Amino acid sequence: MRRYEEVLEVAGKIFCEKGYEATSTQDIADSLGILKGSLYYYTQTKENLLFELIQGALQGSIDNLQRIAAKDDPAIDRLRELICVHVEYLTANLVGTTLSLHEHRSLSPSHAKLVSAVEHEYQAGFEELVAAGQKDGSIRADLDPKLVALGVLGAINWPYRWYRPGRGRKKLKPEVIGEQFAEMLIAGLSAQPARRARKNAAGRGSRR
Amino acid sequence: MRRYEEVLEVAGKIFCEKGYEATSTQDIADSLGILKGSLYYYTQTKENLLFELIQGALQGSIDNLQRIAAKDDPAIDRLRELICVHVEYLTANLVGTTLSLHEHRSLSPSHAKLVSAVEHEYQAGFEELVAAGQKDGSIRADLDPKLVALGVLGAINWPYRWYRPGRGRKKLKPEVIGEQFAEMLIAGLSAQPARRARKNAAGRGSRR
Repeated sequence: MRRYEEVLEVAGKIFCEKGYEATSTQDIADSLGILKGSLYYYTQTKENLLFELIQGALQGSIDNLQRIAAKDDPAIDRLRELICVHVEYLTANLVGTTLSLHEHRSLSPSHAKLVSAVEHEYQAGFEELVAAGQKDGSIRADLDPKLVALGVLGAINWPYRWYRPGRGRKKLKPEVIGEQFAEMLIAGLSAQPARRARKNAAGRGSRR
Repeated sequence: MRRYEEVLEVAGKIFCEKGYEATSTQDIADSLGILKGSLYYYTQTKENLLFELIQGALQGSIDNLQRIAAKDDPAIDRLRELICVHVEYLTANLVGTTLSLHEHRSLSPSHAKLVSAVEHEYQAGFEELVAAGQKDGSIRADLDPKLVALGVLGAINWPYRWYRPGRGRKKLKPEVIGEQFAEMLIAGLSAQPARRARKNAAGRGSRR
């Protein structure tokens, strides 16, 4: 008997390659080497597979947010860590994160509502870190926390569109992408750009 | 006789609302109040409408890039202007830009190739401005121009996902979104953060 996880994995891969709407349950059954009728043992609908994949990816993001937000570090350092961890998580879970970012519109209304609530929770976590940083004086007060959250999320979600493991002449390591994005974004947010840059430079050095 | 522009506009709106794959030529004909057979007077295929809409949106972006890149201003100032203009253009042409960012995978292989070339040209324009800024000393040398271009484009493309004209308690003006993103991103890229911040503050003041 095939494991449900394998069905999810195969379905997710095809959804990403062909697009969800263009994928049939027949395509999924064919890739698994089973009859279409046997697929219904695992799932009642194609949409349910999409929902499970998106929900799984988002849950991992929320876990990362909660773990990092709960730390005692200054808000700007927690935001920096969250940026790096987000990029590493996105690239390590490219199927689920791509579906959550690109195919969410194909969810049923009730599933879309659940997913939307989790997405809002995640975005709110970024907003709260920015607001906390403005309160403790580490983040510039002239920026709107909501717009900062949306700008940062745009930058760090976008790799779903261009990152492919092992592609290109010199493979870009996810941690390098995260580190460079964090460098650019955190320096742009810091209330003390020069001090922040020095601190980051020292931090990078000691990690090597 | 209906104008082709009206057909494009109606088709684009439905593609955005329902998704391209889920839209039929019957849907488009219904919205125009014409018979499906009459639609073929304007276009041979649904895909051709998508291509025209995407191509039109991208051409406007390229025009903006070329106009701004050709200026005599320092590279970092041109990049700043391009960020603001990009956000204003994206929000003012939300249908075309959304399709170019979200439905490009439904293009035919030959159209996809053409579109991909224009997208690369646009991204290369950002990379070149960053590299020029690193050469003239206005942009930090420790960041990879390609990653900066991808990070900036992610932040400023993302509004296609969340910006809706007139939505929300207090409507976010596109120029405010562009200005705040430029503030955050340019301060993060500047080789002289403090000087840049002062200069920007002066620039903003004089514009009001």
